[in-house]
Amino acid sequence: MTPPARSYAQRKQDTLRRLEDDVDAWIATASLDGTPYLMPLSFLWDGTTLLLSTAAKNPTARNLLENPVLQLTIGEIRDLVHITGTAAFVPTEELAEAEGDAFAAKAGFDPRPLRNYLFIRVTPAKIQAWREVDELKDRVLMENGVWNG
Amino acid sequence: MTPPARSYAQRKQDTLRRLEDDVDAWIATASLDGTPYLMPLSFLWDGTTLLLSTAAKNPTARNLLENPVLQLTIGEIRDLVHITGTAAFVPTEELAEAEGDAFAAKAGFDPRPLRNYLFIRVTPAKIQAWREVDELKDRVLMENGVWNG
Repeated sequence: MTPPARSYAQRKQDTLRRLEDDVDAWIATASLDGTPYLMPLSFLWDGTTLLLSTAAKNPTARNLLENPVLQLTIGEIRDLVHITGTAAFVPTEELAEAEGDAFAAKAGFDPRPLRNYLFIRVTPAKIQAWREVDELKDRVLMENGVWNG
Repeated sequence: MTPPARSYAQRKQDTLRRLEDDVDAWIATASLDGTPYLMPLSFLWDGTTLLLSTAAKNPTARNLLENPVLQLTIGEIRDLVHITGTAAFVPTEELAEAEGDAFAAKAGFDPRPLRNYLFIRVTPAKIQAWREVDELKDRVLMENGVWNG
């Protein structure tokens, strides 16, 4: 039996826990000519943004360099956090040491010494969270970068 | 400890089992102006193609109507089947009854009586499968629509 739909407060709490604890996200990007690209990447949440890192030659990085919009999801298909955001590249030398260390610890690898890797900071504009059909209503937790509560 | 990389035969067998048994896939599409869209949908595998269904007004359907390329993934981030394919819409009246029944049984809902739902048939062009980094090598199981073995 499907459990009852969660309250906004519960969904936000569950979402923040996933952002804190989950390691990997699905990242969907597109080239400017509309070719979609879907790949998992590890992420670090700092309370406001998600930090990613990938090789500069990977389509995810190449797409975001020319077209910085993306969607990403965390969790599972039936317990989902769905984020629409924009990406900005962070020069490795501008990354705070503590954040770089935290990223390396969470992702299991340290991109900082890798000359061909880029850091990408994703700022969420919209965050939705739902489990089953009964939670599709009220699934929008953040709009235009602002939490709904 | 990471298990040893699977053979091609084992990966193909595991991939076909996921295509047969898994219920949901991540579907990444893009509009022609390059806005990515990422959403899970149930699928039915017929040995060659994947059948999806979604509401005509959903961005997945709207994107595929104007731009029929997509990427989809099945499985988990560390046990992945990654498919690049093209989509074609199937008029509900042209869908074989047995396939419609099988889709409804697997997806848990029957889109056929729903006037606002569309069926979409995805033909894979490229299929990749990997678990951990040691499996990135030899991850391409199908290219240009042809299995590599």
